[in-house]
Amino acid sequence: MSKAKIGIINVTSYMGAEVARLLYRHPGIELSFITGRSEAGKKLGQVFPHLSQLHMVIDSAPGEADLVFSALPHKAGAETIAPLVDKGVRVIDLSADFRLRDSSAYPLWYGFEHPVPGLLEEAVYGLTEMYRSKIQRAQLVANPGCYPTSAILALAPASKAGLLHGDVIVDSKSGLSGAGRALSLKAHYAEANESVVAYALEGHRHLPEIVQEVEAIKEGAVALTFVPHLVPMTRGILSTCYAPSAGKLSAGERGIAELRQIYRDFYQGEQFVQVVDELPQTKHTLGTNICLVYPTIDLRTNRLTIVSCLDNLVKGGSGQAVQNMNVMLGYSESTGLEQLAVYP
Amino acid sequence: MSKAKIGIINVTSYMGAEVARLLYRHPGIELSFITGRSEAGKKLGQVFPHLSQLHMVIDSAPGEADLVFSALPHKAGAETIAPLVDKGVRVIDLSADFRLRDSSAYPLWYGFEHPVPGLLEEAVYGLTEMYRSKIQRAQLVANPGCYPTSAILALAPASKAGLLHGDVIVDSKSGLSGAGRALSLKAHYAEANESVVAYALEGHRHLPEIVQEVEAIKEGAVALTFVPHLVPMTRGILSTCYAPSAGKLSAGERGIAELRQIYRDFYQGEQFVQVVDELPQTKHTLGTNICLVYPTIDLRTNRLTIVSCLDNLVKGGSGQAVQNMNVMLGYSESTGLEQLAVYP
Amino acid sequence: MSKAKIGIINVTSYMGAEVARLLYRHPGIELSFITGRSEAGKKLGQVFPHLSQLHMVIDSAPGEADLVFSALPHKAGAETIAPLVDKGVRVIDLSADFRLRDSSAYPLWYGFEHPVPGLLEEAVYGLTEMYRSKIQRAQLVANPGCYPTSAILALAPASKAGLLHGDVIVDSKSGLSGAGRALSLKAHYAEANESVVAYALEGHRHLPEIVQEVEAIKEGAVALTFVPHLVPMTRGILSTCYAPSAGKLSAGERGIAELRQIYRDFYQGEQFVQVVDELPQTKHTLGTNICLVYPTIDLRTNRLTIVSCLDNLVKGGSGQAVQNMNVMLGYSESTGLEQLAVYP
Amino acid sequence: MSKAKIGIINVTSYMGAEVARLLYRHPGIELSFITGRSEAGKKLGQVFPHLSQLHMVIDSAPGEADLVFSALPHKAGAETIAPLVDKGVRVIDLSADFRLRDSSAYPLWYGFEHPVPGLLEEAVYGLTEMYRSKIQRAQLVANPGCYPTSAILALAPASKAGLLHGDVIVDSKSGLSGAGRALSLKAHYAEANESVVAYALEGHRHLPEIVQEVEAIKEGAVALTFVPHLVPMTRGILSTCYAPSAGKLSAGERGIAELRQIYRDFYQGEQFVQVVDELPQTKHTLGTNICLVYPTIDLRTNRLTIVSCLDNLVKGGSGQAVQNMNVMLGYSESTGLEQLAVYP
Repeated sequence: MSKAKIGIINVTSYMGAEVARLLYRHPGIELSFITGRSEAGKKLGQVFPHLSQLHMVIDSAPGEADLVFSALPHKAGAETIAPLVDKGVRVIDLSADFRLRDSSAYPLWYGFEHPVPGLLEEAVYGLTEMYRSKIQRAQLVANPGCYPTSAILALAPASKAGLLHGDVIVDSKSGLSGAGRALSLKAHYAEANESVVAYALEGHRHLPEIVQEVEAIKEGAVALTFVPHLVPMTRGILSTCYAPSAGKLSAGERGIAELRQIYRDFYQGEQFVQVVDELPQTKHTLGTNICLVYPTIDLRTNRLTIVSCLDNLVKGGSGQAVQNMNVMLGYSESTGLEQLAVYP
Repeated sequence: MSKAKIGIINVTSYMGAEVARLLYRHPGIELSFITGRSEAGKKLGQVFPHLSQLHMVIDSAPGEADLVFSALPHKAGAETIAPLVDKGVRVIDLSADFRLRDSSAYPLWYGFEHPVPGLLEEAVYGLTEMYRSKIQRAQLVANPGCYPTSAILALAPASKAGLLHGDVIVDSKSGLSGAGRALSLKAHYAEANESVVAYALEGHRHLPEIVQEVEAIKEGAVALTFVPHLVPMTRGILSTCYAPSAGKLSAGERGIAELRQIYRDFYQGEQFVQVVDELPQTKHTLGTNICLVYPTIDLRTNRLTIVSCLDNLVKGGSGQAVQNMNVMLGYSESTGLEQLAVYP
Repeated sequence: MSKAKIGIINVTSYMGAEVARLLYRHPGIELSFITGRSEAGKKLGQVFPHLSQLHMVIDSAPGEADLVFSALPHKAGAETIAPLVDKGVRVIDLSADFRLRDSSAYPLWYGFEHPVPGLLEEAVYGLTEMYRSKIQRAQLVANPGCYPTSAILALAPASKAGLLHGDVIVDSKSGLSGAGRALSLKAHYAEANESVVAYALEGHRHLPEIVQEVEAIKEGAVALTFVPHLVPMTRGILSTCYAPSAGKLSAGERGIAELRQIYRDFYQGEQFVQVVDELPQTKHTLGTNICLVYPTIDLRTNRLTIVSCLDNLVKGGSGQAVQNMNVMLGYSESTGLEQLAVYP
Repeated sequence: MSKAKIGIINVTSYMGAEVARLLYRHPGIELSFITGRSEAGKKLGQVFPHLSQLHMVIDSAPGEADLVFSALPHKAGAETIAPLVDKGVRVIDLSADFRLRDSSAYPLWYGFEHPVPGLLEEAVYGLTEMYRSKIQRAQLVANPGCYPTSAILALAPASKAGLLHGDVIVDSKSGLSGAGRALSLKAHYAEANESVVAYALEGHRHLPEIVQEVEAIKEGAVALTFVPHLVPMTRGILSTCYAPSAGKLSAGERGIAELRQIYRDFYQGEQFVQVVDELPQTKHTLGTNICLVYPTIDLRTNRLTIVSCLDNLVKGGSGQAVQNMNVMLGYSESTGLEQLAVYP
């Protein structure tokens, strides 16, 4: 089989660079171009020394490719991608531009009129474990956000089993790399270090994405509160999800065992979602595409409590994008994603 | 006025050392003794160089004092304190040994029969803002835990105003100093750094303390889930509290304004609880006795969302203990506690 | 005694804010104005919540004052200060603009022609322990850089005692707050965290300042290599200084004892420089004006090895500035600077 | 080719676990046993969740193998390894027990009489770039310490080229994982975080190892001072090395260019040592077997200044051990070590 030609748009973002890292030595592909806005002309290794072994130069504009990863910010993503899709290139978009099915959500949540609303219908939401068969045939994949990946993977089995009332809280804790490489005071070392802060209580942009997908599982409305927090570390998201139990499980420890079995069954055969018996740490996922899920019940209040964690730049972004690429191109889903977490 | 003689039992713990730090240069007291189990005979500055200016030697046993801080672990605390109380010494206990009013809770939550259950009735729970007048006359003050202080201060105004249904979630994020100075794998640098982890989902020891105090405010049962998390920083706790709104507030932004006013009124005149208009960071409290509280409503789900933060070793421990001492001895409540946060 | 009127120019920098923190509750002064370039008109507490208790509004231009702290960047500092000095206001400048005695050093090291070279002669270098009596009478104090303070305090006693050949290496490790509040990639959380990096090997701007002062002690040339490093923490500098021993000390342990005595004698009576018997940590100085110095000899190579550490924003900046203010105004040198380190 | 059978002794240490991580999916080997002292009988994934995919159980004693990695502490290492060597098993020892050629160094530096001094002669020092051909044939490889690897790789080209006078300073900064998994106060999170400290100024155990190898390059004595520091991060060592230039290089920038060329020539063809043009960060090496070396000259003092950095658990330990295994077994040297750094 000849190697697929792959391009990366905006390789100078953390998400773009992480795609490059994961594709290094992928046996089925060939990196045909990488673009970066302000760094065009430089060697990739000058911007990211850890990628110097790729021996590539940053381009100013996309070249030829069979499949393109776009790591542009929202809005810029849609504008750049649309003509590629028109030309028949398959695209995995790491921005939010094709994640929401309802185009009217874009002015509300992202502050712009969607430039190509017609493509929204065509785009497949790239949560591999949920949409694998559609992704296989997709021309345009909307790669999920980091918070939504952790939340949806935590909630999906319970929702599917009818255990959720529709009253859900997602309390997420994220490392700073989720804020990207663009400079900001909140990601300035001295401001972020040794501190925890909640943000976006008036509604984070990932909220409609979580709600859309959780509702899609059971086709019922959920009243979902999502509060993201920044914690002083580079990578990792841990989401703690709370919901009243719908009362379909047995009482006591037996209910917890049933719940775990429901989760294990749901993720049966999945390589990148592991239902674990001990509370997981974000550190257990550093550098890997694995999402760890720990479901339990607070027996005093009969409340479902589900903890999930992942590396926001891998399963929460570029790793999942590569997983999607593997599905789209017919490779083994774990190609390029086999490495274990770097621990401690 | 002659200076009060003060003793610190187990000064070699973080809580004990922090009491010593805060009492340094307190104009109304004189430190008459400091004890430490294994370090007796050493200069305090050998164990804690930052306290070398106190020029004190660690004793093996308590000496004479008008008021004693005990920073012993639970069980050891009660056993050491009981005879002091018998002798008429006033005691502020930083352990959990006198926090729960029901003695039967001790075997259940702490694994030991309470050695002096009779003292539980006498002890006053040392959340200064709630029990100031009782603390003033108390002989034995049970200084609150770090998590309970952050949770109760966040929930009290809403509870008092009848805004809580009794269905509450407290999701707390704590730095590692809360785990104390005793060595453990979870507090080993390489294990804890760059990681977030939830723990004690089966029921943390601070849960009954939070429930006891929140229920005391309105004398009604609450179904409260409390999940603590460790985040990679030394000091600080941030608690995010969620509860369905009881519907007594106006709809929309007006309800949020009413809620804030309720909080401001509740903490009117308090120096150490500040109701803030912007989301607070734990870093804003480093080294100070201040608890910052930010109440709001998730308007999509009509859910109260209250964020509070503090320094777990100060308002969450030793600072509050000194605040209580000031109340007990009739000093201005802020004496020794005036310093601003060390930021950034 | 009436209170001195004090102004802070550029309070919105870390150095400016730290002066404000330390002056809070200083009994001898009254803060008459605070300026900030882009934040004028805001409450100080909006920019720095930890300073909200000062209840001050940020001004756009300096007002009346007896003494002014300027925390402007270099060049801007000199231009703003010169007219104040002309008017007879006493100024403590935290920029580098008056630290170097030789005006020709400015184009070389800072890239600008000094706008008021005539003031260089008048300015007193504000390393309190070295220039106390001159500072007392000074109208313009050039507050030292953070690295130079740690290096000079480490080297001065050895130099004075004739123990230095003139062949010196200073290897310094600094936290990120030294880079200030201005955004930069090197101070971006995800880039700086979990990493150590050396920088400015071609010559850091603090090098001529260190050389000037070390040479001033003995009036002989030193061949000094200075390499600064960034380490992932917010505050603190630790400098490890190496120099061949000039052979005036006894051999073996006895020489080490003599060296320590020389250091103790040199800093006899100083409150803010402590010669310690155990290797110090930067953490022992967090939030305080203390510099810890540990001198020893590598007996295998007969090389002096002196370790010093301090909080770069306090003794390495704003704390020393307040110490200088106390000297200039005749207050006890430690007023406002009594607090112990926040540890752990 | 049939797969080599490999064992890991003390897999529950960080070094042992890191060997297991790197061997996962190594195509030429089969992990035949893993031992762990106190955790025998547990699944590896219970102790290290990131290794759960290896699906192995921890043994209490070594089984059959062609080659064994020993990650025991010093002394225990030698005692366990000697009988294996007797039986003809090839061993890579990650302890210090066979690194020093002179058996009399062990009582002095490690506090024990060497139990099998006869094996010292047989052992090959496992710095692959220096001893590759001997390693190929070795039965017993003494894998280098983390600090020595960084120091020797930084100094070797200069030493070989006759640029060193013999007067050398190595100032190293290490993350906390270097202290291992055994609990200690210095590696307790709250003590180590936000702090830098120098240690072992009286002589660190890695000093004789560095001296032995640097002297071996030119067979001349060096007066070398080595000062290690702990910095608050998990992985990474950066060493800054200083030495007066022996005057064989041209003056000015030309000398720097010559120096870099000497380094590039020396490491010509090496995959795991990269001579870089920009100052490296430890973060550029996270999780990889690469050592980055940046040589320059302080032109003001004519002093060689060489900065090197690596991941202390990979090139500074287990990665180099796997590199050695590849050499010993005739595999491509980079097998299992291809992954790029996890950045940021």
